[in-house]
Amino acid sequence: MMTERPHLHTCVSPSLLHLYNLHDAVVVVIDVFRATSTIAAALHNGAARIIPVDAVDKCIELGAATGCITAGERDGKVVPGLQHGNSPMEYPREFVEGKTLVLTTTNGTKLLHMSLAQGASDIITGSFPNLGAVCKHLVEAGKNVILGCAAWKDRVNMEDTLFAGAVISRVKEYFTIHCDSSLAAETLYHSVKNDLWAFSQKTTHYHRLARYGLEKDMQYCLSEDVANVLPVYRNEELVRGEGVSS
Amino acid sequence: MMTERPHLHTCVSPSLLHLYNLHDAVVVVIDVFRATSTIAAALHNGAARIIPVDAVDKCIELGAATGCITAGERDGKVVPGLQHGNSPMEYPREFVEGKTLVLTTTNGTKLLHMSLAQGASDIITGSFPNLGAVCKHLVEAGKNVILGCAAWKDRVNMEDTLFAGAVISRVKEYFTIHCDSSLAAETLYHSVKNDLWAFSQKTTHYHRLARYGLEKDMQYCLSEDVANVLPVYRNEELVRGEGVSS
Repeated sequence: MMTERPHLHTCVSPSLLHLYNLHDAVVVVIDVFRATSTIAAALHNGAARIIPVDAVDKCIELGAATGCITAGERDGKVVPGLQHGNSPMEYPREFVEGKTLVLTTTNGTKLLHMSLAQGASDIITGSFPNLGAVCKHLVEAGKNVILGCAAWKDRVNMEDTLFAGAVISRVKEYFTIHCDSSLAAETLYHSVKNDLWAFSQKTTHYHRLARYGLEKDMQYCLSEDVANVLPVYRNEELVRGEGVSS
Repeated sequence: MMTERPHLHTCVSPSLLHLYNLHDAVVVVIDVFRATSTIAAALHNGAARIIPVDAVDKCIELGAATGCITAGERDGKVVPGLQHGNSPMEYPREFVEGKTLVLTTTNGTKLLHMSLAQGASDIITGSFPNLGAVCKHLVEAGKNVILGCAAWKDRVNMEDTLFAGAVISRVKEYFTIHCDSSLAAETLYHSVKNDLWAFSQKTTHYHRLARYGLEKDMQYCLSEDVANVLPVYRNEELVRGEGVSS
């Protein structure tokens, strides 16, 4: 008996999330520049957990109450009152191992909370540094998939779409895909994958971050499989998923 | 003194329209399969005007009151109560010349009315058959531009995005473009333009329409410059713009 393969959709902006059924799906929150790259880097380097929060004051409050590291950005910049920024470079093993981060960002943490509000119960995060771990999990889970791009203040962005395309190019044989956003993402990824870095310099967010000298951050965020951990959202925190080496 | 070039943005779904300022811009309503292709074909073949309406009953009512041709579709199918469908093939010159069409469609006419509600005062429609006329007008107008994709029930679709990319590839030197949706549209168009027809067969809307045997419609809708008229929205109707041959 033929069993239909599970469905995969790409949602290119949080403003389109209501069009998709998140209840029975794995939702992959994607914020390549830089939240989900930083999450992968910190967990890969041994962070105990990351608590994503939607507001800066909640971040400061939780940090003060628990002694956790407070981290985040607004509009790409470090926020006054937080100890650290949203750069994967700030979380090497010798600093972050065993610690808890409370993180708030412009787009990525917002999408995560929107997904919860819309009924998602199975959320992971993905970016190029943990591409392989994400793909392995999606294939093993065998459930429907929503690739959720955090975008930039609801406008479609290129880097999150390209990551969706990278995932699709690795896992598509395991899924049923009737979704033009997925077709666009995969076609875009194939046409630029041989020089992601050069192409990324045409994107709006590159220009935003390059003004702050964050080119090295972006190069890291586009490097495939350099922090192959699976960040899983459980009990209001992101932790390393089982069965994937950190 | 340097004058900054006007800005061009691509809006890939009506659900994202609120992110863009339509007040001082030319808004190009794009619904390649098939509303804006049919509009181009009918005006090119001499239709006096096309009255786009958002509801089927309004279409029937207006047709009964004025003796106009009633036309439209829902979910790609002809609607009971309307005289004609949303196929460019139904409007040859010998049938449509001098006549008025009242048209209602799933996505295209909806986006047009949303644009009006959001303050647009300068609306044209575009598809591959009138690509050249649209581009000529945008360059001559020298105003900001919003390329508005009608999409499919708010989900991004490929064919509207590709048309946006075709426009951008012809006019980009006249505009300032900081917009990842535009970058995606242009990159997609360049990667598939040499065989649009083969690529279009991967899209969701192709599969929807091919079930009704509408392959010829779709081939027409993807044919560049075969109905080079400029449909301009004025006084609640679409008419041929001046300065462009019909």
